[in-house]
Amino acid sequence: MTRYDIAIIGTGPAGLEAAITAKVRNKNILLLGGKLLSDKVNKAHTIQNYLGLPEVSGEEMQKAFQRHLEQMQIKITEDKVNAVYAMGKYFAIQGHQAMYEADTVILACGMSTAKPFPGELENLGRGVSYCATCDGALYRGRRTVVIGYSRDEEKEADFLSELADEVIYIPMYQEFSPWNNKVKVLQNVTPVGMEKENDHLVLKLQEQSIPTDGIFILRDQVAPSQLVPGLQIENNQVIVDRGCRTNIAGLFACGDITGAPYQYIKAAGEGNVAALSAVNYLADQK
Amino acid sequence: MTRYDIAIIGTGPAGLEAAITAKVRNKNILLLGGKLLSDKVNKAHTIQNYLGLPEVSGEEMQKAFQRHLEQMQIKITEDKVNAVYAMGKYFAIQGHQAMYEADTVILACGMSTAKPFPGELENLGRGVSYCATCDGALYRGRRTVVIGYSRDEEKEADFLSELADEVIYIPMYQEFSPWNNKVKVLQNVTPVGMEKENDHLVLKLQEQSIPTDGIFILRDQVAPSQLVPGLQIENNQVIVDRGCRTNIAGLFACGDITGAPYQYIKAAGEGNVAALSAVNYLADQK
Repeated sequence: MTRYDIAIIGTGPAGLEAAITAKVRNKNILLLGGKLLSDKVNKAHTIQNYLGLPEVSGEEMQKAFQRHLEQMQIKITEDKVNAVYAMGKYFAIQGHQAMYEADTVILACGMSTAKPFPGELENLGRGVSYCATCDGALYRGRRTVVIGYSRDEEKEADFLSELADEVIYIPMYQEFSPWNNKVKVLQNVTPVGMEKENDHLVLKLQEQSIPTDGIFILRDQVAPSQLVPGLQIENNQVIVDRGCRTNIAGLFACGDITGAPYQYIKAAGEGNVAALSAVNYLADQK
Repeated sequence: MTRYDIAIIGTGPAGLEAAITAKVRNKNILLLGGKLLSDKVNKAHTIQNYLGLPEVSGEEMQKAFQRHLEQMQIKITEDKVNAVYAMGKYFAIQGHQAMYEADTVILACGMSTAKPFPGELENLGRGVSYCATCDGALYRGRRTVVIGYSRDEEKEADFLSELADEVIYIPMYQEFSPWNNKVKVLQNVTPVGMEKENDHLVLKLQEQSIPTDGIFILRDQVAPSQLVPGLQIENNQVIVDRGCRTNIAGLFACGDITGAPYQYIKAAGEGNVAALSAVNYLADQK
């Protein structure tokens, strides 16, 4: 397995700037995220205060970033990260598609707005999962529910439906249309919590309860506290010093995940700082 | 006298981004610095890692910044700042051309490489001065020495020569040619210190000593410790928290003056953070 110098999680301004700076410093990098870069940037209206790009639309800014990546021959590895484990001298990164290894990790995955459901964290790994690709095999012949926060997750439900006896899909987004008759759909319901009852789980909706064996909660983002065990967090934000260093040696964080102000240029500036801190950390390890 | 909401000292990436962000937030700003923006940026070769501006020359980046200022109708007030005084509810800013007042101040004046001469700080205000325009009148009919670090300072020596009985000019830069026969020039000498002897000062050069009444040391930058009395400094860097707040309420700092990494995008990111911290501070004062 390739051991990267620096794995960067996230393709918003913070992650992209970290990648560019790490590449300038000749590091072997892995940039993980969505191919279309940050959804938030794409949807932004006019941005007035990114110095050097006066009054750009989110789309224009996105294109300027894309050109920068191309010019520096940086590729994005399209994958979602489920968990990052500090293994002592390196990090193991559990993606939906694959496992990765890197000497250092930079978290640049944006602000997490995900609020866990009552009972979610207590049952994580005990029936509740964030990744069908990873845990699907455990549910062969069993009953599952998938709570999907974007159309992307329909593929995960497809995969599950090849293994599980039952897949109930709850779309948490607009413009949904059924796509696979092996997947039962429950539309316009609101999950309110989950709990263990004897040997099975119960998903509670506002007006009914569904007994099941596994609940897959597929959000765009995993909360930082779930992403990295042991990471120091406050108000859902990763605590960093002025060098963007977290409490875990070799792990850095930048951009919205470190808190306000939620601004593109602040995120990019921190991406630069995080990358150079990672470069210095790598040099010190030698 | 106009009382500005935010005075920003410095026209490198940190100061410019602070100005843009403060303007977006409808603040009445004063941007103090050189018209040509940062000399360091202008002279830079290719910059690879300012996200959104792939592989630009320093000059191209400068032009992009200039366009941004024009588009937002931000003007630079060309002046050098000599000192910033915290007056309790506002700040008094002593420029070479004028005094200014502002509710908050953002220091964005870059890394200071100035190392004071032995005896300089001890005699500051007691014969040693950083500004001929400010203190020249005290030396009417007396002997003065001007140590000038750039051609700009020749104008200050001109002004002094109209008042003082003797002006000795020591150019600390290359490509010097005498320009005013009322000003005596001492070329290729190295000042090593200064001290008080009875009622006059003595400037010590490597091979001689010059008795004088006033010594004007005209550097591009005043060291941060001299710029703001009471400012917390370490290794010539201003100590700030993650909100770019200094130890003085209402005073913020960003960019190279806060320490490494000395990078354009880091400086711009901090300019954004400092401006928003100043905006929040102003709101809290009301």
